[in-house]
Amino acid sequence: MSAAVLSPTPAPVQAAAPALSPAAREAIADLLERYGQALDDDRVEEWSGFFEPDGVYQVTTRENQLAGRPIGIVLCEGRGMLDDRVKALRIANIFESHTHRHVMGRPLIEPRADGCCEVRTSFVIYRTMYTGETEVFATGRYDDVLKPGPQGWRIAQRRVVLDSRMVDTLMVYPL
Amino acid sequence: MSAAVLSPTPAPVQAAAPALSPAAREAIADLLERYGQALDDDRVEEWSGFFEPDGVYQVTTRENQLAGRPIGIVLCEGRGMLDDRVKALRIANIFESHTHRHVMGRPLIEPRADGCCEVRTSFVIYRTMYTGETEVFATGRYDDVLKPGPQGWRIAQRRVVLDSRMVDTLMVYPL
Amino acid sequence: MSAAVLSPTPAPVQAAAPALSPAAREAIADLLERYGQALDDDRVEEWSGFFEPDGVYQVTTRENQLAGRPIGIVLCEGRGMLDDRVKALRIANIFESHTHRHVMGRPLIEPRADGCCEVRTSFVIYRTMYTGETEVFATGRYDDVLKPGPQGWRIAQRRVVLDSRMVDTLMVYPL
Repeated sequence: MSAAVLSPTPAPVQAAAPALSPAAREAIADLLERYGQALDDDRVEEWSGFFEPDGVYQVTTRENQLAGRPIGIVLCEGRGMLDDRVKALRIANIFESHTHRHVMGRPLIEPRADGCCEVRTSFVIYRTMYTGETEVFATGRYDDVLKPGPQGWRIAQRRVVLDSRMVDTLMVYPL
Repeated sequence: MSAAVLSPTPAPVQAAAPALSPAAREAIADLLERYGQALDDDRVEEWSGFFEPDGVYQVTTRENQLAGRPIGIVLCEGRGMLDDRVKALRIANIFESHTHRHVMGRPLIEPRADGCCEVRTSFVIYRTMYTGETEVFATGRYDDVLKPGPQGWRIAQRRVVLDSRMVDTLMVYPL
Repeated sequence: MSAAVLSPTPAPVQAAAPALSPAAREAIADLLERYGQALDDDRVEEWSGFFEPDGVYQVTTRENQLAGRPIGIVLCEGRGMLDDRVKALRIANIFESHTHRHVMGRPLIEPRADGCCEVRTSFVIYRTMYTGETEVFATGRYDDVLKPGPQGWRIAQRRVVLDSRMVDTLMVYPL
């Protein structure tokens, strides 16, 4: 994530980074929201389709990241690994025991010189158990690299940075 | 909700559905946010004004919807029923015992051929009791049909789909 | 906050209030999100930079505000006071005990005749303790006045209106 995104001052226009059209910004924000709603609807088979064919999905904690530990909790490289993960979950048939609800803040979008965008989005995910109880499941941020293509924007890299160090077995679910 | 909204792939432009201007998208998103802030401010008398005169307001659960049960928990048809509901609450004078706070995700907007839009928005509602305690009151999504008019967009239909099957008596409040 | 923001009907265009460009609306929404992410990243030294040099930061409760009590819980006038506050926190070295996560709704923006904007944004802030537990820390709304300048928009006034009357000692943290 470049300093420009993080600074309170609007980033100076970089000569090398092309301007991003308002339509592209809308498309990126829609993509992230569709991702969340797909998971919340239990349409996890669509999950890998949000990624580039060689897209990377990582989960780590803020603590791990600050400590400079490159290895997170989860690392999937490519749609095949993402699909395998979903199949394993379906076979274990533990999906129906609860549902998620993603509520995300506004994505901060920073165009890069290569045409991709770095995007940073705060989120909270709630979990509702089959009994009906709802609780905060996770809070954190998405640090993404999105790539444009003929079929729209896709996730080239998603790093889920969790605020909490308590990472229970439910981390098997796509976040 | 059409498949286009739910798919990770941007929907192909339908010949019959007119393009929606950026200004219209902003107006829709503003309307939904004003709805939430009005309720959070306890300005419930404004509630029915967000709807078309014959607008429909429904509350159901995800479980009910998946089971194909068309009857939800709440069904109000027309502003008169909405106003009656608010009056009953005011007479019972139980409003001051707590307040709500809506935090919504980005609305996913899908124009229809008839000029209306289907809009899907994730939400969380917090409840703060008079004692000061705050808790998650409900999570879920709004499945809306919005209609344009000379005075702006209005809700033709709002279906509140709750994530939890536990629906307590507080469902008397507008969500 | 003018009635126009609060009404379900789109505000009629005021002769005296200049129209706000879509780019300005995006810049304002980005500023508010960067503010939240800076605090969530523990980059509190950047906090005062989001404000005008003589910017005002206030924290109050909904109850106080409804009772017409002008004095809130916190009042800082000018960047110097904001910086002093942050230094005191750093010296006390209590920052590392927990982290925050802001998730905000869509800002409702109302241009004023003087070129500033009144902005109203619902928020929830989560707190994750060092032990890993995450809980709702505060819900409420930001009532802001934002001012444009050569370096972008800045906060001229931020009033944090908390939903809860229970305001514990953690109110020492920037919200």
